Amino acid sequence: MEQARDSRHHVVIVGAGFGGLEAAKALGKAPDVRVTVVDRYNHHLFQPLLYQVATAVLNPADISAPIRSVLKARNTQVMLAEAKSVDPRRKVLVVEGGEISYDSLVVATGAAHSYFKHPEWAQVAPGLKTLEDAVRIRERVLTAFEAAERESDPVRQREWMTFVIIGGGPTGVELAGALSYMTRHSLPKDFRRIDTRQARVLLLEGLPRVLTAYPEALSERAKRDLEELHVEVRTGALVTGIDAEGVTVGEERIPTRTVMWGAGVAASPLVRSLDVPLDRAGRVMVTPQLTVPGHNDVYVIGDVAAVAQENGKPVPGIAPAAMQMGRHVAKTVRARLRQKPLQPFRYHDKGSFAVIGRGYAVGMLFDKWRMTGRAAWMVWAGVHIAYLIGFRNRLSVMLNWGYTFFTQGGRDMRLITGKVAPRMPALDQGPSLPVVTAAPALPVAQPAPVH
Amino acid sequence: MEQARDSRHHVVIVGAGFGGLEAAKALGKAPDVRVTVVDRYNHHLFQPLLYQVATAVLNPADISAPIRSVLKARNTQVMLAEAKSVDPRRKVLVVEGGEISYDSLVVATGAAHSYFKHPEWAQVAPGLKTLEDAVRIRERVLTAFEAAERESDPVRQREWMTFVIIGGGPTGVELAGALSYMTRHSLPKDFRRIDTRQARVLLLEGLPRVLTAYPEALSERAKRDLEELHVEVRTGALVTGIDAEGVTVGEERIPTRTVMWGAGVAASPLVRSLDVPLDRAGRVMVTPQLTVPGHNDVYVIGDVAAVAQENGKPVPGIAPAAMQMGRHVAKTVRARLRQKPLQPFRYHDKGSFAVIGRGYAVGMLFDKWRMTGRAAWMVWAGVHIAYLIGFRNRLSVMLNWGYTFFTQGGRDMRLITGKVAPRMPALDQGPSLPVVTAAPALPVAQPAPVH
Repeated sequence: MEQARDSRHHVVIVGAGFGGLEAAKALGKAPDVRVTVVDRYNHHLFQPLLYQVATAVLNPADISAPIRSVLKARNTQVMLAEAKSVDPRRKVLVVEGGEISYDSLVVATGAAHSYFKHPEWAQVAPGLKTLEDAVRIRERVLTAFEAAERESDPVRQREWMTFVIIGGGPTGVELAGALSYMTRHSLPKDFRRIDTRQARVLLLEGLPRVLTAYPEALSERAKRDLEELHVEVRTGALVTGIDAEGVTVGEERIPTRTVMWGAGVAASPLVRSLDVPLDRAGRVMVTPQLTVPGHNDVYVIGDVAAVAQENGKPVPGIAPAAMQMGRHVAKTVRARLRQKPLQPFRYHDKGSFAVIGRGYAVGMLFDKWRMTGRAAWMVWAGVHIAYLIGFRNRLSVMLNWGYTFFTQGGRDMRLITGKVAPRMPALDQGPSLPVVTAAPALPVAQPAPVH
Repeated sequence: MEQARDSRHHVVIVGAGFGGLEAAKALGKAPDVRVTVVDRYNHHLFQPLLYQVATAVLNPADISAPIRSVLKARNTQVMLAEAKSVDPRRKVLVVEGGEISYDSLVVATGAAHSYFKHPEWAQVAPGLKTLEDAVRIRERVLTAFEAAERESDPVRQREWMTFVIIGGGPTGVELAGALSYMTRHSLPKDFRRIDTRQARVLLLEGLPRVLTAYPEALSERAKRDLEELHVEVRTGALVTGIDAEGVTVGEERIPTRTVMWGAGVAASPLVRSLDVPLDRAGRVMVTPQLTVPGHNDVYVIGDVAAVAQENGKPVPGIAPAAMQMGRHVAKTVRARLRQKPLQPFRYHDKGSFAVIGRGYAVGMLFDKWRMTGRAAWMVWAGVHIAYLIGFRNRLSVMLNWGYTFFTQGGRDMRLITGKVAPRMPALDQGPSLPVVTAAPALPVAQPAPVH
């Protein structure tokens, strides 16, 4: 079949994260524009709540929405494809299996984990960026407790019940708090031979304090709140080694079977093909119109763009910043088509929060007011529910949160989808299995004798 | 640590399906018994609703519950382990990595797919027994539509939009109806270039009618209802070949990229180690006490047991039958301990149903009354909600069903967790992509020109 050449301005958006989706939505009503959104996943992911999937409070579907159902504008089409490179001279985006030509390109491919110079750590210390990551962490944590329950050697049992989180940024802090809460509230009644409340959760940060993006007083408060939740917070702890049996911090060896990574991110590698200078984190240093220097039809937004605020500080890699950039690019594209003057991008800091366990948070509102404790959490929860895309998800998240509040922990998400993990310990390690001392309130049933 | 030998009678239950769980629950209050439940998964699965996970109506967590949270009795412990064999002389269950000794053993390991003499079909035609299966089918179906949307060749596009389900039993019928509904109600608005309502769903059955366990009139009705849902039902269709590009039925070749298997099941292989006669489906022909001939301390229940009803018909492989067997074994174990007389197992047929698309079903009530249409569906839905274990799941399922009813399809479960599937077609197949003719009501946006 032949077809007429479409005369509308073709905007190709790579990545349906917060930035890309917002740009697409803002262009959905433009009559002289058509939009193609390319993503390697079929869903938009609400990344700020990933740690709740990892700690079995929410379902994967609670924090994701099919891109196709979010972008319903008639001028917009969605393509499931992995972007490989950009050729700005020919004005094409190269994807796995083909090419897509653009009039304007918006690169919104986000960031991935960075293990600095240790790519081998990725295997033993999964990070938390995708649903697969979250489900993997959830299954590793749940399997560790199953292994501890089976284990007869008290030393090894202790290793299974030690969890190390590397990186004291928001991801690490939220994961540590939620994990510690889970070990003390959702899990204890499930096990007979181990007391999950004796699990150790360690948070290791190389710098002198956690949450370095916040003022020192908030870092201090976050540390205290985490310690009250029984998280062992270690600052100035430089990790020099990670393997399947432990973590090395300077001279010290911490034996553990479960390590999680929240320490470093690097911009998506797609922008390397643009052949422009990148900063140390691999981000493009964009113009005030968020374009690539030398190519004013290629926009870069979100975590893959390095942008300075008016006060000189960098725009943080958070969802609201990406969304603002997405909307700004949509405005710029339309202004160009109408030959109107262009505005430089300006970041409006409405605030940001990091959650510490159930019902507590720290954060800044409008870059002015510090908030802590329950009040900060209330603001955080309200903002997150409001932003969650789609009525259904919002209802489901509220239901799950409500349930968690009233019953101490989202019981039914504790799902290991796969069969017994290969890393389970052998059973035949003694004539009878020892009982790990349980707290007095928790009755311990007799274990099965194992021969 | 040393520990005193436990004097209670130790019942080991392998498999936490409907039968095993029911046995464990019924033994949970027995003072002279302790119970160990062994399963290779950490969750009980409500298998009858698996097809709704496969068709993106329900979440995996909606139809599963952690075994540990279901079995809270103090005399019960749960062990995540894969059973390998039974040694009835030494009275031990051999699991991966060790052995567990028992006083009574209950084998409740269920059934798996059987591809008859074609194990190679398992790769191209996934069945529907586990959550992994359901998620895999969901992702294959959704990816097929994504591939069709990308495909430029109309013949190949048609192949991507052809879905073949092999086996006209309840699983095949339910999957075919739900899939056809999905293509006509939940998906159409999502795509721009294909009209998902033109997808073909074929149900192939080798015997002369579908749902052979029911009276002929119900099979007829089911076929008619399926055809009204645009499912192409072919009976007497013997499949002789399946590969990645199609299905062969006698002389005919049906080109398709997505095949699903609901044709055969075989009992779990664990019972082979018992060294007793098995029937053709690999099931143990048990005594009236549901024990293995020659070993009255080894019980076999559920889909892995071959039991005859009083009318000579076999007890069907459905959840209520397994649950009745589980309760009967618990009674027998307790009666033996008290040296009371034993009762033979008797199956009470309360009925069974097969759902056909949204709001329709066929079935039998108390082995007497035929039910069809909406009435049958209402009974089916009521029974299933009532049986679903755990308040949370029940609420969540009702919420999701309610949503599906009012909005035509559970939008947000349409999740492909992984990245672009490797089987996606190449993009570079012509100077411009053709538009698949859409039904008139559906506006089609211009496709992107692809060079």
